[in-house]
Amino acid sequence: MAKKGLLLGLMSLFIAGCSDDSAFGPGQWLDLTHDFSSDTVYWPTSDPFTMTVVHEGVTDKGFYYAAYKFCAAEHGGTHIDAPIHFAEGRRTVDRIPLAQLVGPAVRIDVTEQALKNRDYQVGVADLENWEARYGKIPASGIVLLHTGYGRYWPDRVKYLGTDKRGEEGVAGLHFPGLHPEAAAWLAVNRNIRAAGIDTASIDYGQSQTFDSHVILMSRDIPAFENVANLDKMPPTGAQVIALPMKIRGGSGGPLRIIAYIR
Amino acid sequence: MAKKGLLLGLMSLFIAGCSDDSAFGPGQWLDLTHDFSSDTVYWPTSDPFTMTVVHEGVTDKGFYYAAYKFCAAEHGGTHIDAPIHFAEGRRTVDRIPLAQLVGPAVRIDVTEQALKNRDYQVGVADLENWEARYGKIPASGIVLLHTGYGRYWPDRVKYLGTDKRGEEGVAGLHFPGLHPEAAAWLAVNRNIRAAGIDTASIDYGQSQTFDSHVILMSRDIPAFENVANLDKMPPTGAQVIALPMKIRGGSGGPLRIIAYIR
Repeated sequence: MAKKGLLLGLMSLFIAGCSDDSAFGPGQWLDLTHDFSSDTVYWPTSDPFTMTVVHEGVTDKGFYYAAYKFCAAEHGGTHIDAPIHFAEGRRTVDRIPLAQLVGPAVRIDVTEQALKNRDYQVGVADLENWEARYGKIPASGIVLLHTGYGRYWPDRVKYLGTDKRGEEGVAGLHFPGLHPEAAAWLAVNRNIRAAGIDTASIDYGQSQTFDSHVILMSRDIPAFENVANLDKMPPTGAQVIALPMKIRGGSGGPLRIIAYIR
Repeated sequence: MAKKGLLLGLMSLFIAGCSDDSAFGPGQWLDLTHDFSSDTVYWPTSDPFTMTVVHEGVTDKGFYYAAYKFCAAEHGGTHIDAPIHFAEGRRTVDRIPLAQLVGPAVRIDVTEQALKNRDYQVGVADLENWEARYGKIPASGIVLLHTGYGRYWPDRVKYLGTDKRGEEGVAGLHFPGLHPEAAAWLAVNRNIRAAGIDTASIDYGQSQTFDSHVILMSRDIPAFENVANLDKMPPTGAQVIALPMKIRGGSGGPLRIIAYIR
């Protein structure tokens, strides 16, 4: 069984086309994640990301050693909103099933509409137009809304609409999001796994009641926010893997989201 | 091209067996990650993980809202050591290629030896014994050392050998690791992608100079530490996906590591 088993396993993985050169077949990985640093965009009311040196350099025992520590709000940078973020009693970030964080990518391109209108909300018509061209959004789909605002990261004025902090900053938020009607359509009619966007929030910047969050999360559908590199994604055919930091009881957290493109 | 393209895409993914029910074929996801909380095991000289409530409850606008912030050392809980952690000038965590973080799992079971000897170091003989049974460790392999100490998490005395803090704690560290000769064998003879272990460090607890770290990392091979659930992994045939938090310039960080088992 030994060597033969391993060979068969590797061969089936190769045929499967399930990872990279050797195991996932022909294709390439794309990182949909912005990195975390003092430049990282957070909500105007959030603390910024901070990092502190623990050690950097050669120790008295003669080896090189570098280590840091950091502080972060859950909901900044490329991150996930767990259902409990806006839906009491729903899943915390550590309880989201892995199978819900992996699936075929559906990239909806609304750059033309959204770049002309900072307050654009992706509507049911945008979703229907996508389906007319590419087919029905699968129930296992991870829907990624490409507004084009990712190109402005991390320039707060262009990306968020403001670089003001606190409540003055919140009042000045102007960036596109998902219309609550379209959120309901995706949740109820298509039963998607997750929704992502290349802006700071799945609800548009001027939302006061975060209805799209409530609609998705009350149905245990998480949201991925500040997603990067959506301009490099195909409309269909890619696989998304979105793995959040596993914070016990967390309402969200830093997300590493990648795609495999064949 | 529209619907037909989508159908063909989905069919090829199904045949590929590359994710979950619909897309990755028959199989299941296994989470190899401990969650982060105040229980999380850190090095005796590290600050513990802390989490603070930002908001929890219904807002004055009538919707429920929960959010937290946290502070963490890079090198605690289930985490990655980026090459720069012990090798000056090598890759920081944000620069590790995604293809190096994904690959076929090679689980080396040394529980019998290690549970009898807290200072056990996995040797070249252990690796050769594994190969005699299962075949050559592939160059794309992610080698996971199963010492059995994961069962003790998060009991510090049983897991680390001590619950003391500071230098007194460091002196009391007794847990298994990878012998430097075996680290060199894996790095040079097998050119593996990454190495992981179900203890707090790839070097055993009593190491003073962290030679296995230096050997691996000077060759740009990262290490995964405090990996969970290795008892549920098969010796071969699983795929590992290990995605760290993308900290710019980081020497490591929280890691979400999962496996797909067919």
